[in-house]
Amino acid sequence: MTEFSFRLLATDGAARAGEISTPHGIVRTPAFMPVGTQAAIKGVHHADVRAAGADIILANTYHLMLRPGAERVAALGGLHQFMGWPHPIITDSGGFQVMSLAPLRQITEAGVTFRSHIDGAMVELSPERAIAVQILLGSDIAMQLDECVKLPAEKHDIERAMGLSLRWAERCKRAFERAPAGRALFGIVQGGDDQALREHSARALAGIGFHGYAIGGLAVGETAEVMRKVVGETAPALPRAQPRYLMGVGTPSDLLDAVERGIDMFDCVLPTRNGRHGLAFTRFGPINIKNAHHADDKRPLDAESRCPAARDFSRAYLHHLFKAGEALGGTLLSVINLYYYQDLMAGARAAIAAGRYADYVAQTREAWAAKRDWPQC
Amino acid sequence: MTEFSFRLLATDGAARAGEISTPHGIVRTPAFMPVGTQAAIKGVHHADVRAAGADIILANTYHLMLRPGAERVAALGGLHQFMGWPHPIITDSGGFQVMSLAPLRQITEAGVTFRSHIDGAMVELSPERAIAVQILLGSDIAMQLDECVKLPAEKHDIERAMGLSLRWAERCKRAFERAPAGRALFGIVQGGDDQALREHSARALAGIGFHGYAIGGLAVGETAEVMRKVVGETAPALPRAQPRYLMGVGTPSDLLDAVERGIDMFDCVLPTRNGRHGLAFTRFGPINIKNAHHADDKRPLDAESRCPAARDFSRAYLHHLFKAGEALGGTLLSVINLYYYQDLMAGARAAIAAGRYADYVAQTREAWAAKRDWPQC
Repeated sequence: MTEFSFRLLATDGAARAGEISTPHGIVRTPAFMPVGTQAAIKGVHHADVRAAGADIILANTYHLMLRPGAERVAALGGLHQFMGWPHPIITDSGGFQVMSLAPLRQITEAGVTFRSHIDGAMVELSPERAIAVQILLGSDIAMQLDECVKLPAEKHDIERAMGLSLRWAERCKRAFERAPAGRALFGIVQGGDDQALREHSARALAGIGFHGYAIGGLAVGETAEVMRKVVGETAPALPRAQPRYLMGVGTPSDLLDAVERGIDMFDCVLPTRNGRHGLAFTRFGPINIKNAHHADDKRPLDAESRCPAARDFSRAYLHHLFKAGEALGGTLLSVINLYYYQDLMAGARAAIAAGRYADYVAQTREAWAAKRDWPQC
Repeated sequence: MTEFSFRLLATDGAARAGEISTPHGIVRTPAFMPVGTQAAIKGVHHADVRAAGADIILANTYHLMLRPGAERVAALGGLHQFMGWPHPIITDSGGFQVMSLAPLRQITEAGVTFRSHIDGAMVELSPERAIAVQILLGSDIAMQLDECVKLPAEKHDIERAMGLSLRWAERCKRAFERAPAGRALFGIVQGGDDQALREHSARALAGIGFHGYAIGGLAVGETAEVMRKVVGETAPALPRAQPRYLMGVGTPSDLLDAVERGIDMFDCVLPTRNGRHGLAFTRFGPINIKNAHHADDKRPLDAESRCPAARDFSRAYLHHLFKAGEALGGTLLSVINLYYYQDLMAGARAAIAAGRYADYVAQTREAWAAKRDWPQC
């Protein structure tokens, strides 16, 4: 059993390249983690997720605790065996989805109570239960339960949620003492767009001590500028020796910005969600394959892509699949986008190692320049 | 350019094993041809269709002539290049879908006029146009335009449609003289459940002369017993030296019955349609993966299957995917079913070659016996 560890291999300015070791294998950072909400990456076979270059995927505790149930997953051998993904898995705490999906939620010091969106049952999620569920699921990296506030918000609301998240962080850490050896727990920085609150949260979490630190409460309605500012101010307040994870972010441009500011890990539904809706991420910028001018275009999306689907199918055929309502179109574009995100991160890792990350970002943005307006995550 | 040809390799009673040569490769018979209605097998990547063992797929002329359009497909290099399937392709004539899908259809001696279900435009499909469209698509095997009558039907209706189909067969053959070398045209036997009409149709088509002969107008509401009777009486009336194709059939049991009666080719949406609906075809009979008792079942569908998805995922996980509404479930079961159909045909070919087809059928049915009630195609 490998213990969890993080090795910093290279830095370039604030940007970092490293390697996380987990019981189920290595994660190269900066890392993009595809989202397998219900123990499946939507519309994409695990083999394609892996071939795209993903070292680790994220699964959602909220969904899995409701269906098929954490105890059932544990009885079936844990999440890795249940879903047939023998590589690293990170789980969130469930808190974010409770806030965004569950009706009738009530937050108290003890935890969150909510009505299941599946069968209407009342469910309690305390810091202790969030950890117990993640231990049952068997993820390599678990997240603390936190409260995330949508921006913009009043300072006293942000401060209250940040304070509650810190107290829950301590309870999560205690609860995690029961976790099998090798597994890791990350704390989550809150504090909205308030620099002082963010720094307080970051230092307090570091004082408690976690295997890694996430920045939560972003990609919840703020501008890209606010996101850059918060990440740029928060990352330096986090311990250098542990990985830093920016939750729920984001567009390719967001990823480049955040890596520049010292972030090591990302998760986002964007490559698969946009893929299902006909938007391909490519070296040449985003391409909406549903646009009529693709109907007669024999060219592939990117003849030099590492992704077979980007090379082997014409834009005309991909366009046809979307127009005809064939699910294969969404699958192919999701796969193409997963490759693109992984290649973007692989390029970042190589550039950081070579001390030329700024050039990499400039060249990547230049290639995108003909296209603009990345959709929001 | 390979000319179209059929080589009979072995017979066992009326059952036949053979090999069809086409410009795009060999088709081993008895052959099951997965249905790629709109130039895509629903929810399944071409690579998986091929890996399952498919030598040839069927595409629907009706759908493709309406969207993306036959002239567009031709301009994009033909169907093989358009969809990225470099292996043999058969197209139907469009007639069957006109009857079943198009509103406001009108049949005259000249052909069929119908309203497109996509944009409401009035479209004419004559025997000549049906062949022209299939030549534009570039399929290796084209089908004559015919009129198919739903059973049960009055004898005079069946007789009228059979007579019209024969006259259209002659016109299709003339129109097909313009096809590039190597391509094949099949005639279609009609005649409903009337033995005399079927035999008349079969002999008249043989008199016109085609590269192969299909039995149409089955799997349209009749019982399995009627289907067996019609196939058993019609097949002997068809030329021995050409392939025989039973259109739109069927269940695994139907396939075994029809092979026994001398059929060489099949197409059916059943493996993919039922896969999307949670029904897996296996050596142990059909399994409805949505049934609650699979929720805790660690076993794969078939540990000894040639199909990775049947081996590598537990029934509990497949069940979860369906319960959670994850499209991956339908994809995996479709792939599993395509493998099963191909393996069933591979087993039939081997058994016929070994002169033990009756044993093969008996053993296969015995293994299914614990489960019954194959769904209808």
